[in-house]
Amino acid sequence: MKMSGGVEWALHCCVVLTAAPAPVPAGRLAELHDVSGSYLAKQLQSLSRAGLVHSVQGHAGGYRLTRPAGEITVLDVVVAVDGPQPAFVCTEIRQRGPLATPAEMCTAPCAISRAMAAAEHAWREALRAVTIADLAESVTGDYGPAVFDGIRAWLR
Amino acid sequence: MKMSGGVEWALHCCVVLTAAPAPVPAGRLAELHDVSGSYLAKQLQSLSRAGLVHSVQGHAGGYRLTRPAGEITVLDVVVAVDGPQPAFVCTEIRQRGPLATPAEMCTAPCAISRAMAAAEHAWREALRAVTIADLAESVTGDYGPAVFDGIRAWLR
Ligand code: FES
Ligand code: FES
Repeated sequence: MKMSGGVEWALHCCVVLTAAPAPVPAGRLAELHDVSGSYLAKQLQSLSRAGLVHSVQGHAGGYRLTRPAGEITVLDVVVAVDGPQPAFVCTEIRQRGPLATPAEMCTAPCAISRAMAAAEHAWREALRAVTIADLAESVTGDYGPAVFDGIRAWLR
Repeated sequence: MKMSGGVEWALHCCVVLTAAPAPVPAGRLAELHDVSGSYLAKQLQSLSRAGLVHSVQGHAGGYRLTRPAGEITVLDVVVAVDGPQPAFVCTEIRQRGPLATPAEMCTAPCAISRAMAAAEHAWREALRAVTIADLAESVTGDYGPAVFDGIRAWLR
Protein backbone atom coordinates (compact mmCIF):
# COMPACT_ATOMS: atom_id res chain seq x y z
CA MET A 1 0.00 0.00 0.00
CA LYS A 2 1.56 3.23 -1.09
CA MET A 3 0.29 6.76 -0.68
CA SER A 4 1.03 9.36 -3.34
CA GLY A 5 4.28 11.18 -2.58
CA GLY A 6 2.39 14.39 -3.26
CA VAL A 7 0.72 14.17 0.14
CA GLU A 8 3.93 15.13 1.97
CA TRP A 9 4.46 18.16 -0.29
CA ALA A 10 0.84 19.26 -0.09
CA LEU A 11 0.80 19.10 3.71
CA HIS A 12 4.06 21.03 3.99
CA CYS A 13 2.66 23.68 1.62
CA CYS A 14 -0.51 24.02 3.68
CA VAL A 15 1.52 24.53 6.86
CA VAL A 16 3.63 27.18 5.11
CA LEU A 17 0.47 28.93 3.89
CA THR A 18 -0.74 29.32 7.50
CA ALA A 19 2.22 31.67 8.00
CA ALA A 20 1.93 33.60 4.75
CA PRO A 21 0.74 37.20 5.10
CA ALA A 22 -0.34 37.26 1.42
CA PRO A 23 -1.06 34.78 -1.40
CA VAL A 24 2.07 32.78 -2.31
CA PRO A 25 2.88 32.05 -5.98
CA ALA A 26 3.31 28.33 -6.74
CA GLY A 27 6.85 29.07 -7.94
CA ARG A 28 7.81 30.51 -4.55
CA LEU A 29 6.45 27.45 -2.74
CA ALA A 30 8.46 25.25 -5.12
CA GLU A 31 11.60 27.30 -4.51
CA LEU A 32 11.11 27.19 -0.75
CA HIS A 33 10.86 23.39 -0.88
CA ASP A 34 13.46 22.95 -3.62
CA VAL A 35 11.14 20.91 -5.82
CA SER A 36 10.14 21.12 -9.47
CA GLY A 37 7.54 23.84 -10.05
CA SER A 38 5.43 21.67 -12.34
CA TYR A 39 5.32 18.85 -9.79
CA LEU A 40 4.25 21.15 -7.00
CA ALA A 41 1.72 22.88 -9.26
CA LYS A 42 0.03 19.52 -9.72
CA GLN A 43 -0.37 19.09 -5.95
CA LEU A 44 -1.62 22.66 -5.54
CA GLN A 45 -4.18 22.08 -8.30
CA SER A 46 -5.43 19.02 -6.41
CA LEU A 47 -5.79 21.14 -3.27
CA SER A 48 -7.55 23.81 -5.31
CA ARG A 49 -9.99 21.34 -6.89
CA ALA A 50 -10.84 20.12 -3.38
CA GLY A 51 -11.54 23.69 -2.29
CA LEU A 52 -8.73 23.81 0.26
CA VAL A 53 -6.66 26.50 -1.42
CA HIS A 54 -7.67 29.28 -3.74
CA SER A 55 -5.61 30.76 -6.51
CA VAL A 56 -5.64 34.54 -6.48
CA GLN A 57 -4.96 35.96 -9.94
CA GLY A 58 -2.95 39.03 -10.80
CA HIS A 59 0.38 40.64 -9.97
CA ALA A 60 0.17 40.00 -6.21
CA GLY A 61 -1.43 36.63 -6.94
CA GLY A 62 -0.74 33.18 -5.59
CA TYR A 63 -2.23 30.55 -3.35
CA ARG A 64 -3.90 31.01 -0.01
CA LEU A 65 -5.95 28.68 2.20
CA THR A 66 -9.68 29.08 1.60
CA ARG A 67 -10.59 28.75 5.27
CA PRO A 68 -9.00 28.90 8.72
CA ALA A 69 -6.28 26.25 9.15
CA GLY A 70 -8.23 24.86 12.11
CA GLU A 71 -10.99 23.90 9.67
CA ILE A 72 -8.77 21.97 7.26
CA THR A 73 -7.94 18.46 8.41
CA VAL A 74 -5.04 16.26 7.38
CA LEU A 75 -7.68 13.90 5.95
CA ASP A 76 -8.96 16.71 3.70
CA VAL A 77 -5.47 17.09 2.22
CA VAL A 78 -4.85 13.34 1.89
CA VAL A 79 -8.17 12.83 0.09
CA ALA A 80 -7.54 15.86 -2.15
CA VAL A 81 -4.14 14.58 -3.29
CA ASP A 82 -4.47 10.81 -3.03
CA GLY A 83 -8.12 10.45 -3.98
CA PRO A 84 -11.20 9.39 -2.03
CA GLN A 85 -11.21 5.67 -2.92
CA PRO A 86 -10.58 3.23 -0.06
CA ALA A 87 -7.31 1.28 -0.07
CA PHE A 88 -9.15 -2.04 0.00
CA VAL A 89 -11.67 -2.66 -2.75
CA CYS A 90 -13.83 -5.80 -2.45
CA THR A 91 -14.34 -7.52 -5.80
CA GLU A 92 -17.03 -9.90 -4.45
CA ILE A 93 -14.89 -13.02 -4.55
CA ARG A 94 -17.61 -14.78 -2.58
CA GLN A 95 -19.86 -14.66 -5.65
CA ARG A 96 -17.41 -16.69 -7.76
CA GLY A 97 -16.77 -20.37 -8.35
CA PRO A 98 -18.74 -23.57 -7.77
CA LEU A 99 -19.84 -22.56 -4.26
CA ALA A 100 -20.65 -18.96 -5.14
CA THR A 101 -22.81 -17.16 -2.60
CA PRO A 102 -26.02 -16.11 -4.40
CA ALA A 103 -26.16 -12.39 -5.17
CA GLU A 104 -29.31 -11.96 -3.07
CA MET A 105 -27.32 -13.05 0.00
CA CYS A 106 -24.62 -10.48 -0.75
CA THR A 107 -26.45 -7.25 -0.04
CA ALA A 108 -24.22 -6.56 2.99
CA PRO A 109 -20.41 -6.63 2.73
CA CYS A 110 -18.66 -9.87 3.75
CA ALA A 111 -16.79 -10.20 7.05
CA ILE A 112 -13.43 -9.62 5.37
CA SER A 113 -14.67 -6.47 3.69
CA ARG A 114 -16.13 -5.25 6.99
CA ALA A 115 -12.82 -5.79 8.81
CA MET A 116 -10.97 -3.82 6.14
CA ALA A 117 -13.58 -1.04 6.22
CA ALA A 118 -13.30 -0.78 10.00
CA ALA A 119 -9.53 -0.34 9.73
CA GLU A 120 -9.89 2.31 7.03
CA HIS A 121 -12.41 4.09 9.21
CA ALA A 122 -9.93 4.12 12.11
CA TRP A 123 -7.25 5.49 9.77
CA ARG A 124 -9.52 8.23 8.45
CA GLU A 125 -10.71 9.24 11.91
CA ALA A 126 -7.09 9.61 13.04
CA LEU A 127 -6.34 11.87 10.06
CA ARG A 128 -9.55 13.80 10.58
CA ALA A 129 -8.58 14.51 14.19
CA VAL A 130 -5.56 16.61 13.18
CA THR A 131 -5.93 20.00 11.49
CA ILE A 132 -3.41 22.11 9.60
CA ALA A 133 -3.55 24.50 12.58
CA ASP A 134 -2.54 21.60 14.86
CA LEU A 135 0.40 20.83 12.57
CA ALA A 136 1.51 24.46 12.56
CA GLU A 137 1.32 24.50 16.35
CA SER A 138 3.41 21.32 16.55
CA VAL A 139 5.99 22.80 14.20
CA THR A 140 6.22 25.82 16.51
CA GLY A 141 6.55 23.47 19.47
CA ASP A 142 9.28 21.46 17.75
CA TYR A 143 11.47 24.27 16.40
CA GLY A 144 10.27 27.42 18.14
CA PRO A 145 8.20 30.34 16.76
CA ALA A 146 11.20 31.68 14.81
CA VAL A 147 10.50 29.08 12.11
CA PHE A 148 7.38 30.87 10.93
CA ASP A 149 9.03 34.28 11.28
CA GLY A 150 11.75 32.98 8.99
CA ILE A 151 9.20 31.74 6.45
CA ARG A 152 7.33 35.04 6.57
CA ALA A 153 10.52 37.01 6.04
CA TRP A 154 11.60 34.78 3.14
CA LEU A 155 8.18 35.05 1.46
CA ARG A 156 8.09 38.83 1.62
CA MET B 1 -3.72 4.64 -1.86
CA LYS B 2 -4.35 1.18 -3.21
CA MET B 3 -3.87 -2.15 -1.50
CA SER B 4 -2.79 -5.16 -3.54
CA GLY B 5 -5.81 -7.04 -4.89
CA GLY B 6 -4.15 -10.21 -3.62
CA VAL B 7 -5.18 -9.36 -0.06
CA GLU B 8 -8.83 -10.21 -0.74
CA TRP B 9 -7.89 -13.59 -2.27
CA ALA B 10 -5.42 -14.42 0.48
CA LEU B 11 -7.92 -13.67 3.23
CA HIS B 12 -10.64 -15.72 1.55
CA CYS B 13 -8.18 -18.62 1.17
CA CYS B 14 -7.22 -18.45 4.85
CA VAL B 15 -10.88 -18.59 5.87
CA VAL B 16 -11.43 -21.60 3.60
CA LEU B 17 -8.38 -23.32 5.09
CA THR B 18 -9.91 -23.08 8.58
CA ALA B 19 -12.58 -25.49 7.33
CA ALA B 20 -10.30 -27.88 5.45
CA PRO B 21 -9.88 -31.31 7.04
CA ALA B 22 -6.63 -31.87 5.10
CA PRO B 23 -4.06 -29.81 3.15
CA VAL B 24 -5.65 -28.16 0.09
CA PRO B 25 -3.75 -28.05 -3.22
CA ALA B 26 -3.33 -24.53 -4.66
CA GLY B 27 -5.19 -25.65 -7.78
CA ARG B 28 -8.25 -26.61 -5.74
CA LEU B 29 -8.28 -23.23 -3.98
CA ALA B 30 -8.04 -21.56 -7.38
CA GLU B 31 -10.90 -23.67 -8.74
CA LEU B 32 -13.05 -22.96 -5.69
CA HIS B 33 -12.56 -19.23 -6.21
CA ASP B 34 -12.62 -19.35 -10.00
CA VAL B 35 -9.30 -17.54 -10.34
CA SER B 36 -6.12 -18.27 -12.29
CA GLY B 37 -3.97 -20.86 -10.55
CA SER B 38 -0.74 -18.96 -11.13
CA TYR B 39 -2.21 -15.77 -9.65
CA LEU B 40 -3.43 -17.54 -6.55
CA ALA B 41 -0.15 -19.46 -6.23
CA LYS B 42 1.61 -16.11 -5.93
CA GLN B 43 -0.59 -15.08 -3.00
CA LEU B 44 -0.14 -18.47 -1.32
CA GLN B 45 3.62 -18.16 -1.70
CA SER B 46 3.46 -14.78 0.03
CA LEU B 47 1.51 -16.36 2.88
CA SER B 48 4.01 -19.19 2.99
CA ARG B 49 7.04 -16.87 3.10
CA ALA B 50 5.39 -15.08 6.02
CA GLY B 51 4.96 -18.40 7.84
CA LEU B 52 1.15 -18.28 7.83
CA VAL B 53 0.59 -21.31 5.62
CA HIS B 54 2.73 -24.36 5.03
CA SER B 55 2.97 -26.36 1.86
CA VAL B 56 2.74 -30.09 2.51
CA GLN B 57 4.46 -32.06 -0.25
CA GLY B 58 3.36 -35.36 -1.73
CA HIS B 59 0.26 -37.00 -3.11
CA ALA B 60 -2.07 -35.77 -0.35
CA GLY B 61 -0.18 -32.49 -0.33
CA GLY B 62 -1.40 -28.92 -0.34
CA TYR B 63 -1.62 -25.87 1.88
CA ARG B 64 -2.64 -25.71 5.49
CA LEU B 65 -2.49 -22.96 8.11
CA THR B 66 0.65 -23.21 10.24
CA ARG B 67 -1.10 -22.27 13.46
CA PRO B 68 -4.60 -21.98 14.93
CA ALA B 69 -6.74 -19.46 13.02
CA GLY B 70 -7.20 -17.54 16.26
CA GLU B 71 -3.47 -16.80 16.19
CA ILE B 72 -3.38 -15.38 12.66
CA THR B 73 -4.56 -11.79 12.40
CA VAL B 74 -5.88 -9.96 9.38
CA LEU B 75 -2.84 -7.70 9.76
CA ASP B 76 -0.55 -10.74 9.40
CA VAL B 77 -2.16 -11.55 6.04
CA VAL B 78 -2.18 -7.94 4.81
CA VAL B 79 1.51 -7.52 5.65
CA ALA B 80 2.36 -10.88 4.06
CA VAL B 81 0.69 -9.99 0.76
CA ASP B 82 0.98 -6.23 0.60
CA GLY B 83 4.35 -5.79 2.30
CA PRO B 84 5.38 -4.26 5.62
CA GLN B 85 6.21 -0.75 4.41
CA PRO B 86 3.98 2.07 5.68
CA ALA B 87 1.67 3.81 3.20
CA PHE B 88 3.20 7.19 3.98
CA VAL B 89 6.93 7.54 3.58
CA CYS B 90 8.52 10.80 4.76
CA THR B 91 11.23 12.04 2.39
CA GLU B 92 12.46 14.73 4.81
CA ILE B 93 11.13 17.67 2.82
CA ARG B 94 11.93 19.88 5.81
CA GLN B 95 15.66 19.43 5.10
CA ARG B 96 15.36 20.96 1.61
CA GLY B 97 15.52 24.46 0.21
CA PRO B 98 16.77 27.83 1.45
CA LEU B 99 15.16 27.45 4.90
CA ALA B 100 16.14 23.80 5.36
CA THR B 101 15.94 22.53 8.93
CA PRO B 102 19.46 21.42 9.92
CA ALA B 103 19.85 17.63 10.02
CA GLU B 104 20.75 17.72 13.71
CA MET B 105 17.29 19.15 14.46
CA CYS B 106 15.64 16.34 12.51
CA THR B 107 16.34 13.36 14.72
CA ALA B 108 12.61 13.02 15.55
CA PRO B 109 9.97 12.82 12.78
CA CYS B 110 8.19 16.08 11.87
CA ALA B 111 4.61 16.78 12.97
CA ILE B 112 3.21 15.75 9.58
CA SER B 113 5.06 12.48 9.66
CA ARG B 114 3.86 11.87 13.24
CA ALA B 115 0.23 12.47 12.26
CA MET B 116 0.52 10.00 9.38
CA ALA B 117 2.24 7.44 11.60
CA ALA B 118 -0.52 7.73 14.21
CA ALA B 119 -3.14 7.03 11.55
CA GLU B 120 -1.22 4.03 10.24
CA HIS B 121 -0.93 2.76 13.78
CA ALA B 122 -4.71 3.02 14.24
CA TRP B 123 -5.21 1.14 10.96
CA ARG B 124 -2.81 -1.62 11.94
CA GLU B 125 -4.31 -2.00 15.39
CA ALA B 126 -7.76 -2.42 13.85
CA LEU B 127 -6.46 -5.14 11.52
CA ARG B 128 -4.54 -6.77 14.35
CA ALA B 129 -7.73 -6.98 16.43
CA VAL B 130 -9.40 -9.39 14.00
CA THR B 131 -8.20 -12.96 13.53
CA ILE B 132 -8.92 -15.49 10.80
CA ALA B 133 -10.97 -17.38 13.42
CA ASP B 134 -13.07 -14.24 13.95
CA LEU B 135 -13.65 -14.00 10.21
CA ALA B 136 -14.70 -17.65 10.00
CA GLU B 137 -17.10 -17.10 12.89
CA SER B 138 -18.58 -14.04 11.16
CA VAL B 139 -19.01 -16.02 7.94
CA THR B 140 -20.90 -18.66 9.92
CA GLY B 141 -22.99 -15.92 11.50
CA ASP B 142 -23.73 -14.35 8.11
CA TYR B 143 -24.62 -17.45 6.09
CA GLY B 144 -25.08 -20.25 8.64
CA PRO B 145 -22.80 -23.20 9.46
CA ALA B 146 -23.79 -24.99 6.25
CA VAL B 147 -21.31 -22.79 4.36
CA PHE B 148 -18.32 -24.57 5.86
CA ASP B 149 -19.99 -27.98 5.53
CA GLY B 150 -20.39 -27.20 1.84
CA ILE B 151 -16.72 -26.22 1.51
CA ARG B 152 -15.59 -29.35 3.37
CA ALA B 153 -17.73 -31.57 1.14
CA TRP B 154 -16.46 -29.89 -2.03
CA LEU B 155 -12.82 -30.18 -0.91
CA ARG B 156 -13.08 -33.89 -0.15
S1 FES C 1 -16.17 -10.95 -1.06
FE1 FES C 1 -14.82 -9.24 -1.08
S2 FES C 1 -13.88 -9.33 0.82
FE2 FES C 1 -15.18 -11.06 0.84
S1 FES D 1 9.62 16.22 6.53
FE1 FES D 1 8.54 14.47 5.88
S2 FES D 1 6.56 14.76 6.63
FE2 FES D 1 7.61 16.55 7.22
